[in-house]
Amino acid sequence: MEMTQMNEPLKVALLGCGVVGTQVARLILEQGDDLTARIGRPLELVGIAVRNLDRPRPEMLRPLLTTDADALVARGDIDVVIELIGGVADAGRLIRSAFEHGASVVTANKALLASEGETIFPAAERAGVDLYYEAAVAGAIPIIRPLRESLVGDAIQVVMGIVNGTTNYILDKMTTEGLDYQTALVQAKDLGYAEADPTADVEGFDAAAKAALLASIAFHTKVRGDSVHREGITHIVPDDIRAARDLDCVIKLLAVANLLDDGRISVRVHPALVPNSHPLASVGGAYNAIFVEAAAAGRLMFVGPGAGGAPTASAVVGDLVTVARNRARGVVGPRQSLYTDRQVAPMGALQTRYFLRFRVTDEPGVLAAVAGVFARHQISVQTVRQMPVDNAALVARDTAELRMTTHLATEDAMLVCLAELRASPQVRSEVRFIRVEGL
Amino acid sequence: MEMTQMNEPLKVALLGCGVVGTQVARLILEQGDDLTARIGRPLELVGIAVRNLDRPRPEMLRPLLTTDADALVARGDIDVVIELIGGVADAGRLIRSAFEHGASVVTANKALLASEGETIFPAAERAGVDLYYEAAVAGAIPIIRPLRESLVGDAIQVVMGIVNGTTNYILDKMTTEGLDYQTALVQAKDLGYAEADPTADVEGFDAAAKAALLASIAFHTKVRGDSVHREGITHIVPDDIRAARDLDCVIKLLAVANLLDDGRISVRVHPALVPNSHPLASVGGAYNAIFVEAAAAGRLMFVGPGAGGAPTASAVVGDLVTVARNRARGVVGPRQSLYTDRQVAPMGALQTRYFLRFRVTDEPGVLAAVAGVFARHQISVQTVRQMPVDNAALVARDTAELRMTTHLATEDAMLVCLAELRASPQVRSEVRFIRVEGL
Repeated sequence: MEMTQMNEPLKVALLGCGVVGTQVARLILEQGDDLTARIGRPLELVGIAVRNLDRPRPEMLRPLLTTDADALVARGDIDVVIELIGGVADAGRLIRSAFEHGASVVTANKALLASEGETIFPAAERAGVDLYYEAAVAGAIPIIRPLRESLVGDAIQVVMGIVNGTTNYILDKMTTEGLDYQTALVQAKDLGYAEADPTADVEGFDAAAKAALLASIAFHTKVRGDSVHREGITHIVPDDIRAARDLDCVIKLLAVANLLDDGRISVRVHPALVPNSHPLASVGGAYNAIFVEAAAAGRLMFVGPGAGGAPTASAVVGDLVTVARNRARGVVGPRQSLYTDRQVAPMGALQTRYFLRFRVTDEPGVLAAVAGVFARHQISVQTVRQMPVDNAALVARDTAELRMTTHLATEDAMLVCLAELRASPQVRSEVRFIRVEGL
Repeated sequence: MEMTQMNEPLKVALLGCGVVGTQVARLILEQGDDLTARIGRPLELVGIAVRNLDRPRPEMLRPLLTTDADALVARGDIDVVIELIGGVADAGRLIRSAFEHGASVVTANKALLASEGETIFPAAERAGVDLYYEAAVAGAIPIIRPLRESLVGDAIQVVMGIVNGTTNYILDKMTTEGLDYQTALVQAKDLGYAEADPTADVEGFDAAAKAALLASIAFHTKVRGDSVHREGITHIVPDDIRAARDLDCVIKLLAVANLLDDGRISVRVHPALVPNSHPLASVGGAYNAIFVEAAAAGRLMFVGPGAGGAPTASAVVGDLVTVARNRARGVVGPRQSLYTDRQVAPMGALQTRYFLRFRVTDEPGVLAAVAGVFARHQISVQTVRQMPVDNAALVARDTAELRMTTHLATEDAMLVCLAELRASPQVRSEVRFIRVEGL
């Protein structure tokens, strides 16, 4: 009896066969013997659901294709469904159907988990199946399992990462080659690092979904993607990058989740000045990196390819093997731990440091007036630098640029201070304002 | 019935209460509510085995102390034994006894696992209990679980790391402050980074045990610590460090495991020149870092505190929670996967790059003669640099230092070439020879 059971293949259905899906199928088919040995049972890829049967695909995948994803998932004999179609509505319906038909699920769908995780995780639990999603955050970098399992005995204080390769590539180009945002975006599109409609990346939606997942795991609570404060990089100008460099910093789009003193958490995505001495500063190109600070472990960092077909497929197949091993032994993995019910604090409650840049009339007493505004709001100024204005032809001769950094201040106080600065007669331009992280 | 079972504490026995053990006990006692919530059952620390009852220890631990480790393990009601006494004989006996009495084990004992893993892992399996050891390699850095689970669907090609904080601290001091080995060692001892007898660290024994564990997991095979080629750092001189710097490299003690073309693996610990452009080059002080290259995932790196009480305790308690979760659900985690039976190749089969440094008579034709030696052994020279000798007073005026780097060559060929160089009449000093990794 045991031999039969041991040799009985575990049946796998793949939903979606784009860049990642094709690599996943290839790994399953080409590494069959190794995966069998690692799992203790063979895997059988029984079907691949696609939208369009006519797209060019590897020959060996052709016999497996179907356009009826719902029927594939509902066969009733599937052990593991791999969901790589993305989006929320179809993917959510198919994953729930997989659970109802007794299949475990591996997915890379951060948007779905960040918006419907509250119901999807319990649905997996009720069905007694696994739901794994290592590929949903930071591509090939193992981060979900380390947070859920390796660091589960520790008290995590901060998770901060570069989790979107598109924006990191664009900011990197702006930094190293002095390009403006639009030019860097076009290059990113040409190289396939940015999509035709780059909104999800450049406006921070993708990073916000990942921040929600990271915060949920790190702080054992439920965080939805839409409760994450989100700012993108479209407003970053070369002068910001240059000003950051003068402060020995780079500008990165960060996803940050940290514990506040009152037990609430701050979860946010925004560009930030990061000191060059911080390990995240040197993470360039399309790489991702996650920095974790925990009470006992101290400071850890995980770096690797954040996207791409093969790296993402590596994470998916790693989950597939784990889920299949569980299945072969008749068990499920540890459940999402959500016992704390920590609240996501509004941005106003955040305490961080700020960088400001604005033009002022260049006359005696201006700095005193500006400093007075900060003082009234109890914001301690760390550095002030008065710079000649770059392009003197375009502005009145009697203006200078002030660049200021603050010590820790609450965002509430900072916003009131900003409003007052903007209304101040000495201030002659918009007041640019970027948070400083990683000090 | 379920409520009783749910509230029944899981009993934990701790063996060893030194720097790490004290932190582990503190985390278990102080974070009790959090750990209970994460596990789904409370933990009860029922005893701590120590050698000496009279050493000063936190007051709250006193009632738990015993000197009879064997009796503690053999109580029969222990769910998890945490082994932190180190060494091989006592630790091995106690761990086997734990298995026989039905307890799962969490250990940080790399020496034991690297020498007796062949019998200890099967013993855990026969007993139907867990054996976890995240803390055995690279302190708080999650690396065992990522290799065993996250990357289990991929084909790992290289695992290369800085896994010994003591030697990394010493080499770092030699590099940044120009110290010689002995002075840097004394500083490391003063700061508690090196032990009174530093042999295990500086001669590479500690790193070799870790290399064996990493290689076993990465390549799904059994590698013993004593089959790892091992060289320490005691012979590294400041001139080596300076010569490395001239080549834009640093010298690091690396643990390397990589797949050879013939399917065998090379597993070794030795100092190596690492280019400053490689992410491992910038890992300084007592930090550890593991670089992994896999066919699909690409290049990943994991960085963090490699030692110390609290970071190591974080890894131990992470394993404790995992094992306890398994226990609470009546399951065990995935088994060590050892199906490949890959052989560890002798060092002669290694292909890598080499740096050589030696003095020659400074006269016409010498470079041609030296180059001829390399050519005869089919070793392609990448760079040659002829340097004035540093301290002209100590050597004959007609000598110069040659610094050479090679392209990929087998170690067998290199050793024959070295022997011939050493016997060559033009060579006027020892021939220093350091491998180059990470290009």
